[in-house]
Parts: sequence; structure tokens; C-alpha cells
Amino acid sequence: MVGASLARVRAESPLVHNITNLVVMNTTANALLAVGASPVMAHAPNEVEDMVGLARALVLNIGTLDDAWVGAMLLAGRAARRRGVPVVLDPVGAGATQYRTETARRLLAEVAPTIVRGNASEIRALGGGAGGTRGVDSVHETEAALDAARSLAAAHGCVVSVSGAVDLVVAGDQIARVRNGVPLMTRVTGMGCTASALTGAFAAVAASPFVAAAHAMVVLGVAGELAAERAAGPGSLQVEILDALASLRPEDVDRRARLEGSPG
Amino acid sequence: MVGASLARVRAESPLVHNITNLVVMNTTANALLAVGASPVMAHAPNEVEDMVGLARALVLNIGTLDDAWVGAMLLAGRAARRRGVPVVLDPVGAGATQYRTETARRLLAEVAPTIVRGNASEIRALGGGAGGTRGVDSVHETEAALDAARSLAAAHGCVVSVSGAVDLVVAGDQIARVRNGVPLMTRVTGMGCTASALTGAFAAVAASPFVAAAHAMVVLGVAGELAAERAAGPGSLQVEILDALASLRPEDVDRRARLEGSPG
Amino acid sequence: MVGASLARVRAESPLVHNITNLVVMNTTANALLAVGASPVMAHAPNEVEDMVGLARALVLNIGTLDDAWVGAMLLAGRAARRRGVPVVLDPVGAGATQYRTETARRLLAEVAPTIVRGNASEIRALGGGAGGTRGVDSVHETEAALDAARSLAAAHGCVVSVSGAVDLVVAGDQIARVRNGVPLMTRVTGMGCTASALTGAFAAVAASPFVAAAHAMVVLGVAGELAAERAAGPGSLQVEILDALASLRPEDVDRRARLEGSPG
Repeated sequence: MVGASLARVRAESPLVHNITNLVVMNTTANALLAVGASPVMAHAPNEVEDMVGLARALVLNIGTLDDAWVGAMLLAGRAARRRGVPVVLDPVGAGATQYRTETARRLLAEVAPTIVRGNASEIRALGGGAGGTRGVDSVHETEAALDAARSLAAAHGCVVSVSGAVDLVVAGDQIARVRNGVPLMTRVTGMGCTASALTGAFAAVAASPFVAAAHAMVVLGVAGELAAERAAGPGSLQVEILDALASLRPEDVDRRARLEGSPG
Repeated sequence: MVGASLARVRAESPLVHNITNLVVMNTTANALLAVGASPVMAHAPNEVEDMVGLARALVLNIGTLDDAWVGAMLLAGRAARRRGVPVVLDPVGAGATQYRTETARRLLAEVAPTIVRGNASEIRALGGGAGGTRGVDSVHETEAALDAARSLAAAHGCVVSVSGAVDLVVAGDQIARVRNGVPLMTRVTGMGCTASALTGAFAAVAASPFVAAAHAMVVLGVAGELAAERAAGPGSLQVEILDALASLRPEDVDRRARLEGSPG
Repeated sequence: MVGASLARVRAESPLVHNITNLVVMNTTANALLAVGASPVMAHAPNEVEDMVGLARALVLNIGTLDDAWVGAMLLAGRAARRRGVPVVLDPVGAGATQYRTETARRLLAEVAPTIVRGNASEIRALGGGAGGTRGVDSVHETEAALDAARSLAAAHGCVVSVSGAVDLVVAGDQIARVRNGVPLMTRVTGMGCTASALTGAFAAVAASPFVAAAHAMVVLGVAGELAAERAAGPGSLQVEILDALASLRPEDVDRRARLEGSPG
């Protein structure tokens, strides 16, 4: 049950180490705090391996990548794998520029992330199928990325989580679909990055990466739905989502969950 | 009419590539999303030229500049000009330190931006007249920057947009004045940077850079006025401005526009 | 009286130069603007010494440190000391990784900050006593850091401000305790960083660093209490704190202040 995973995040308050983009540092740290996890942002090569050693999940997000940050991601990612710390990769903008696509592929190959969480365009750019990212926004429905997600999951032995109107989570032969969330969430910058950060928190406590990826999408989606009842636009939605993440009761999550494929 | 420009931004949702400062990355991305545009932030030399090739406007903002970011701005700016992509330069803090003034001058000379959007102190520092920036805040009224704006516009063949209690937009012999906005907006960090980002979105769709610069200031000013009716201080104003940018109807913008000099 | 310090910040609007972390750039700039100060963020070695020359306080925060930023902090910090500009050091995460602890020690030794403001774990890591930072969050009560704070204050001739449920401010033999604030503030990222930024603003105008450090904690704590009366969770608390900082009346601060040790 999703509510039990949420309760576990709050009880254990796992430290989630983020090497993420400059746009969402504040909002993803706040989302992690709101849901009950403990965020840390650290990117210096001097310390990322030590920090991973304290963390229970690592989130790598290439939204404002450059060579120095990619170097830190590789160092931290390899250290995480050596230590058995789950790694979430958000390949922001893969398919938009060659540099993003190649960096995402390099991280896939050298880090072997536990979970890849992106939008449909990004997953298609990495898993096959025409790219079609425009900047960092997806131009595809998630179902159009199902084959790419399966192929990516198979090639790298990872869980693939594709966010959109209906979220898809693919692990081997298993598929889960999450129908929570509201369209207004696409008008808030970094909502996908928040999904990736929460996926890290759930990966720290869940029974499996497949369960973690699906439960994180439900929790964020339900928080978005509750927030939308009080929000007058994207500015207040961003604020209300943090309040909702903090006040969400496990039983309400379970009642509102629209999750198919029964993970967990 | 300003409302028609706003409708065009929403209909076309132009991709706006920002190389901007670390303080405002989140808020300017959100403002662009709220108004209906599509933001992307990218600063790696490996990809800025590719990203400009996908974008319909480039916004360069030196608010937290360093040599690596300035190098990326030069690369991206030159690529934008080769491709005919309009470039907005926000010379944050020009006049405060020699490094900022010289960097702004170098970007003016090597990129030849389409529109320069700054406060009165910054425009005076670049166009003549005593500087008088204190940090990144202006200590001058915009009318005191009129001669500097004219001289800057003439020297670089660009539009100059000066924000303040009354915004001035200068293009050759033309002058527009925008009397929208509220004083509380000066208590929110990066409101000028938001004006620059929106100017980029309007430059992507407007009939001319002069029109774009004026219409962007009207839209942000009207959003600020509507937000101020609901806000209790600078924190809620920032949130309400995003809501207002998203909900603003073209007819309301036209009704509330206080624009002299009739651009568009 | 605390209210008089607040009034002085508003009357003088001191420029506060921040070399701070990427998570809190926006929120600390907004907090400084809201309280009435004037923030600037600048980290390029090309300009930090010039910028310090314009500023009335310098805030160094190692929350997302790397070697380039530490180099800028050293340059700016030394320039500040040469010019008599007060320096606030926030040793975010000291004790969590060797790099953070060593960097904080280097800044202590080479910059000799006026005020060190951290949580109990960070102060223990620097002043003696077992570390026990987990990421960037404290796992200790402030009273458990009293000896470490005294020892740090004595060793470096600085004021030490320890934030927690009860804030401690130590200067030589003097101790002040601040009992303002609400627990929900710990669920907003960068609230400690905001305390450090405000400490910079008050250091610019107060009679002594001891007074400045204590008054800043009272003002933020009272703003947090007022904000909590209107907030429904951490998202709205962050917004309401900015509104409260801007609307706080000096007499209300004095009435609500829970300050022992009578500084100022």
C-alpha cells in the first residue's frame, strides 16, 4: 500500500543526496522535507563520495548540466552503486541536444541507475523511437514511450518511470500505471524533478525500486490533486503541493490512489 | 494591442533559452511557464549553440556572472545572432563593479543584443551619465536614464527597456512609457529578471523588438497590479504574480494597459 | 531593543553581499529584501573584492561549496576583514564530510569571521564534542553545543550563534538565549541560511555582533510565529515568513521577543 510507504518515509526520514539542477534545488529540497525525508545537495568532487556514504538514495538530474557537474555525478553514482545505495537518474532534456543525450547514455552505462525517471520524450530519446523533446518539455504521451521504456529497462536492468497524464512504471515484464495528478502541474517548473527527488526518498525505504517508483508518483499526484482544490494558478499550486505533501495522511493516499498493476 | 501579443505567446508557446542568474532560475522559469511560454535553462558550452538552435529567443542575464558563464553567454549570443534569434541582455549590476560593467559592454559589442533591459542605474552605467548602482538595485528614476537609453540604443542599434516606477522603452527616435506595476514589486527579488525573461517570450512572437519590450512590461505590470490586490506582502506577491500571469485575459490586459507611445 | 535594530535595518537598508548556496539564493535574497535590507549575490573572483567594498556585511555560506566558490569566499572574506566589514560564516554541513569541516576551519582561520551561525551539530563539529551532523540537519539540541560554542568563540574571537528550538548566542562570557520561532520552520529548506543572511543585515547596523546575532534570531523567530498563525504547512509558511518580515512592526517584535541575556 502506498500509505505505508509514505509512513515509512516519515518514520525513517532517509537522507537523500541530490546532484540536481539549479532551477529546482530549492523546490526539490522543500518537497523532500515536506514528505518527511531529509535532503542534502552536494556536488563537489571532494565530497560527493563521502556524502553518498551517509545517504540512503542518490538522485542525479542533468537539467542544468555541465562537465564539472557530470564529473561529480559519475563519481557519486559509482560510489552509490559500490555501496548499494539506490540511484535515480532524471535525464532532463535528453533528446534536445546531443550533449544531454550523450551524457544521459554515459550515466546509464557507467552508473547503472536503479531507476530512470523522465518524460516520454526523454525516455524515447534513450530507449528508442524518434526523440521529439523540445527543450525540456515532452511532446509525447506516455503510452507512446512504452516500448522505449521496456527496451531501456531491459538494456540496463533498471526500472523506468515515465511521467505524464498517465504515469508508466516499467520493470522487466511488469507495468504499473498511475492516474493521479492534475494538468496544472505541468505549468510549475521542475515538477518532474520533484517526482525524481521523491522517487529517491521512496527508493530508500520501499520493498523494491518498482514499488518505490510507482508509490512516489501516486504521492506526488495525490498531493497535486489536493493542492489544485485550493490553488488559483501555478504559483499557489507550487506552494499548496508542499503543504499537501506535509499533511497527507497515509489513509487518504490509499483512498485516492489510482494505481494499476498493483505494485507493493 | 498588448492582449493580442499575450494571446500569441500562449498560442505559440515559444521556447525561451535562458542563461541567467542563480537567484532567479526558478522564478523566471515559472514566470515563463505561467505566461504560456516554454523555458529552458542551459549554460554548458557543449550545448548552448544547439539549444539556441531550438529556441525562439535567448535571454542573457549577468546577475551572478563568472568567466565560465560569460563564455557560454558569448557562444550562445553569437549563435543566436547568426540564426536570427532575438537576444535580450539584462546587465544586472552594471556600474556596481568594473567586472559587471566590462562584461555588459563586451556582450553589447560581441553579441549585439536585440533588446537591453535594465534598471536606470544599469542603463546609465552603460549609456552614459554617472553610474550610481548600489549592488544590483537602481538608485535612479527612469527619466534620468532617458539620454543614456537613447545613446545606448543608437550606439548598438538595439531597443533599450528601462524598468522603474515608469518604464521607458526606447528604439531610435521612438519612446514608449509604461505606467503599470506596483511599488511592492521592488521588494521581490528578480522582478527585473522576470521582466527580461518575459521580454524574451514576447520578442519571439511580436511584430518588432520595440513592441515586444513594451508589451512585456505591460503584462508584468498588470499581473503585478492584480497580484497586489490579493497579496499581503512580498512573499505572497511573488506567488500571486505567477497566478495572475497564468489567468490574465487578453481583454483585461488591454483594458488595464497604461502604455504611451502606442507601440503595436 | 530588537525593534530599534529592525527599524535601523529598514532606515539604512544595508547592502549585504552573499556568497551562499544554490538552494537558498532566492529565498535569502527575498528575506533580506523583506526585512528592509538590500541583497547582492556575487561569487566571481573578478569582482568579490569590489563588491565587498560596496557592502556593509558579507555572508559566507558553504551549503553547496566547491573549490571555486571557496576560493571566492576566501578572497571576499579577507577583503571584508581588511575593510572592517562584518563577516557571517554559516558552516552548513560541517561535520558531515571532511571537506565541509576542513573548509569551515580554513574560513575560520583565514577570514576570522565576526559571527559564526550554525546548528548544534555544525558548532560541535567545529568547536569540539562529537560531530553527529546527518547531511545538513542537526541531530543535537543547542544546549548540547554550549561548550563547543564557547570554545569556538574563544578560539576565534568571534560571536557564535547556534540555532535550534532555543537559539544560543555566545560572545566571550556572555550568553543570550532566544526562545522565538516554531518547529514547522525546520520543515522549510534554508531557514538556517535565512537566519545567517538576516544576521548579516543586523550586523551592518547593530551596536555589536553579539546584539546583531541575537536580534536577527528574534526577528526571524517572531516572523515565523506570525507566519505559522496563517500557514497550513511548510509551503505557505515560507511565503508567510516573507510577508511577516516585511510587515513586522518594531513594537510587535519587542512585545513578542523572548530574549534572555539582555543584549542591546
